[in-house]
Amino acid sequence: MITLLTDFGIADYFIPSVKGVILSIHPQAQIIDLTHNIPAQDIAAAAFTLSACYHLFPAGTIHTTIVDPGVGSARHPIVIDTGRYLFVGPDNGIFSLVYAREKNFRVFHASRSSFFRSSISPTFHGRDVFAPLSAWLSKGIRPECLGEEIQDYVVLPRTPPQPVADAIIGEIIHIDHFGNCITNLTLRELDWSQVTNATRIQINEHAVSSFGTHFAQAPNVTDFLAYLGSAGYWEIALWQASAAQQLNVRRGSKVYLYR
Amino acid sequence: MITLLTDFGIADYFIPSVKGVILSIHPQAQIIDLTHNIPAQDIAAAAFTLSACYHLFPAGTIHTTIVDPGVGSARHPIVIDTGRYLFVGPDNGIFSLVYAREKNFRVFHASRSSFFRSSISPTFHGRDVFAPLSAWLSKGIRPECLGEEIQDYVVLPRTPPQPVADAIIGEIIHIDHFGNCITNLTLRELDWSQVTNATRIQINEHAVSSFGTHFAQAPNVTDFLAYLGSAGYWEIALWQASAAQQLNVRRGSKVYLYR
Amino acid sequence: MITLLTDFGIADYFIPSVKGVILSIHPQAQIIDLTHNIPAQDIAAAAFTLSACYHLFPAGTIHTTIVDPGVGSARHPIVIDTGRYLFVGPDNGIFSLVYAREKNFRVFHASRSSFFRSSISPTFHGRDVFAPLSAWLSKGIRPECLGEEIQDYVVLPRTPPQPVADAIIGEIIHIDHFGNCITNLTLRELDWSQVTNATRIQINEHAVSSFGTHFAQAPNVTDFLAYLGSAGYWEIALWQASAAQQLNVRRGSKVYLYR
Repeated sequence: MITLLTDFGIADYFIPSVKGVILSIHPQAQIIDLTHNIPAQDIAAAAFTLSACYHLFPAGTIHTTIVDPGVGSARHPIVIDTGRYLFVGPDNGIFSLVYAREKNFRVFHASRSSFFRSSISPTFHGRDVFAPLSAWLSKGIRPECLGEEIQDYVVLPRTPPQPVADAIIGEIIHIDHFGNCITNLTLRELDWSQVTNATRIQINEHAVSSFGTHFAQAPNVTDFLAYLGSAGYWEIALWQASAAQQLNVRRGSKVYLYR
Repeated sequence: MITLLTDFGIADYFIPSVKGVILSIHPQAQIIDLTHNIPAQDIAAAAFTLSACYHLFPAGTIHTTIVDPGVGSARHPIVIDTGRYLFVGPDNGIFSLVYAREKNFRVFHASRSSFFRSSISPTFHGRDVFAPLSAWLSKGIRPECLGEEIQDYVVLPRTPPQPVADAIIGEIIHIDHFGNCITNLTLRELDWSQVTNATRIQINEHAVSSFGTHFAQAPNVTDFLAYLGSAGYWEIALWQASAAQQLNVRRGSKVYLYR
Repeated sequence: MITLLTDFGIADYFIPSVKGVILSIHPQAQIIDLTHNIPAQDIAAAAFTLSACYHLFPAGTIHTTIVDPGVGSARHPIVIDTGRYLFVGPDNGIFSLVYAREKNFRVFHASRSSFFRSSISPTFHGRDVFAPLSAWLSKGIRPECLGEEIQDYVVLPRTPPQPVADAIIGEIIHIDHFGNCITNLTLRELDWSQVTNATRIQINEHAVSSFGTHFAQAPNVTDFLAYLGSAGYWEIALWQASAAQQLNVRRGSKVYLYR
């Protein structure tokens, strides 16, 4: 089983090219799309989306993750082996949250070009490098056979929530399809026993003070609701509307938690 | 075979999470996307789209249908057994047109939490309730094992075409990707033998009087064409343009048929 | 293995209907989406996208290609047999670049309605004609059994690059998801040995004079870069932005190559 997560969109020849190459090497491969609508070249968004779902797949799944603004440059193609899963993609930080979540893993620089396509476009390693690597791994080739283990893989800097005088400063790390705003605040920063009438999350000029478990609990349809989201982070939603638009936030926008 | 129809969009971790859970329980499951681009929380649109294609799938298909604004609240997860198909989703009216189309079916409240994931997010029953239910059904678990049969399932109110003095009042029930407008008028309201030079469908200030069978028959590229669409309803189209935009209509807009 | 390339979008009942029909005839068929986001009724865009990826699939793949503004009219459903692949779709020029690329092929008018659905909507041959044809071919029915071989299949006119006094006039043939502009200029019009400091591609008022192999090579983030793209054509890109927007071009826009 091979999953694909990219910023290629679904309107071009990119994704079918990747699939064609995989299936030509391994016609029995089962290919699952995670998403191809990561914002163009947004490595952090890809890292978040991957981290929220990769662990739900069966053991042995190969996660192929291609958001690659440096395609054709010196950045390495890598393969990560966690024992349970394999990951294939560029060494640009896209696997940062996999490294953070997993205890034991090995990272390999996939340098043996005999496992690439014979002709390699400098702008489409998805088709010419990562697709064949994934296909060969799905046929049982071991990561050790693809190149040397490395230690200096790229990890994106993280900005964990920061306690200040009377608040904890967090930030929006993702905005989903519904306009719900996912913060980097978790049960570590706020657990249910700490929620009182005074608890609020301040975002721009908005104070979000309704805390609940699900959308239908918002006291009024125009009230923001804070809830512990399905990826383990506190989120802000509006009932049947986009909280992100109403709050006027983007990824990286600051939020202030007053407990 | 399990199909998925949702309003989750295709840019987030939602759909791959659902698929990962299904495949972890049943790695041989064949998953087919119906669509994930139902307008957010639009139960009626989901009901229409499901009704237009579910019956084309092989016997034994499990149709998992998740548009669920009440997720986390008291609304029930249900399973419908028509003999030929199983349906899995929230009891919020999303299966109204299945109930209308099928003669014999049984509805079960899927209450046995041993068939859910062990930890359930109040905002993501797609991953934690409906995905595992579908996977277990695909492994042969009978609906009767999931909970009690119920009779008080939710059915959306329908507004059938209404005859008035000299017309029949119908409405737009769907607007498709091309901008074609699907009405709730069928051969019952207008069959081909009734179409004369005087027949017209009035929508806002536009009188659509060209009736044909296919798009290329529009007399001029700027003329609206009425035709019996592939879902069994009279539709209005413009040659290579969006009829919905030109007519300035939405779902629910009234149409007046003069025979 | 059956691939699907259409302009049906992914929000409606169209694609699941096609898949349901295929799987009802041949439940073991493996269906791969190429794309369903070809601009509505844009036969040339479908021809380009198909030509850029069909040859990457395993031998025996059936490519079903449906962009069909003339659905329901006299245009024929055809099947092309190249020995390696089969193609199924309307005879409206959509396979023009397949004809140009392949040396040996036969084209059949699929006229035997016993291989269609029993009831045929004049507006949805994707479901009622092309889906069952593809399914039967995937079960081993030979193209010869579907109808007569024809020679007068439709080929779209092409406008190859034209040498004039001091330049070669080409045009934009595709704009991709990232806003990269694909021209019809290839290594025949400009090979790497011909690139000097004076070489440029003029598009509207912009002179693109940076030639490279991959995106990260643009001298400044605001400079256009010309590179040989992964489909074999010279393309114009902007680093992390849409070249098409900045150049203000569409498909068909003229480009002038000065070597």
